[in-house]
Amino acid sequence: MAVNFQALAEEFTKFYYAQFDSDRSQLGNLYRDHSMLTFETSQLQGAKNIIEKLVSLPFQKVAHRISTLDAQPSSPDMGSVLVMVTGELLVDEEQNPQRYSQVFHLIPEGGSYYVFNDIFRLNYS
Amino acid sequence: MAVNFQALAEEFTKFYYAQFDSDRSQLGNLYRDHSMLTFETSQLQGAKNIIEKLVSLPFQKVAHRISTLDAQPSSPDMGSVLVMVTGELLVDEEQNPQRYSQVFHLIPEGGSYYVFNDIFRLNYS
Repeated sequence: MAVNFQALAEEFTKFYYAQFDSDRSQLGNLYRDHSMLTFETSQLQGAKNIIEKLVSLPFQKVAHRISTLDAQPSSPDMGSVLVMVTGELLVDEEQNPQRYSQVFHLIPEGGSYYVFNDIFRLNYS
Repeated sequence: MAVNFQALAEEFTKFYYAQFDSDRSQLGNLYRDHSMLTFETSQLQGAKNIIEKLVSLPFQKVAHRISTLDAQPSSPDMGSVLVMVTGELLVDEEQNPQRYSQVFHLIPEGGSYYVFNDIFRLNYS
């Protein structure tokens, strides 16, 4: 059965950002011990370290808005999916959103997917 | 021998954008028949289709400037590399650069690398 990569990427990012924006401490089961996060200039490996980093970010309220979302299979036959998001981030009482770019590399596992690669950058103008 | 993913990504993108900005019709040997390009809302597969698309873009002069460049291994043991670039694009006689985000997924082959995934989006504000 052919996977609809775009639909899968939309479903994943919708779930991910909803969870991030309501309680990001609960994102741990989307990462594994060999998962990697680049968040701005910080590099983390492992679900525990990644969640500690995300929880430590200096804002209480946060809302992600997706501007563009693109997906491709990342291998000819493994079912893995590469997702690139560009969007806007609104934190705490800030009125002006910050633009960001983010890549997720999703690996199939037991009927679901986990995040192997996660790269996040704010886009300063 | 551990691969320095960041150095490899810097070397690749330097080469890629220099070639793109001088003569993008010559980028074909960086793609394969199963390579994919998402360029804005267009989706292409195969080196020939990808190069036709890149050559058809409606500008003569183009210059890429990298703002941020991040790399991670995209698998535990395959030597493949995921690269996310954010940068600025200056085309023809335009004075104002356009911001963009781009992802490359590089696969090792015979001592070098080819592009399996390429996703490009302009960042409109």
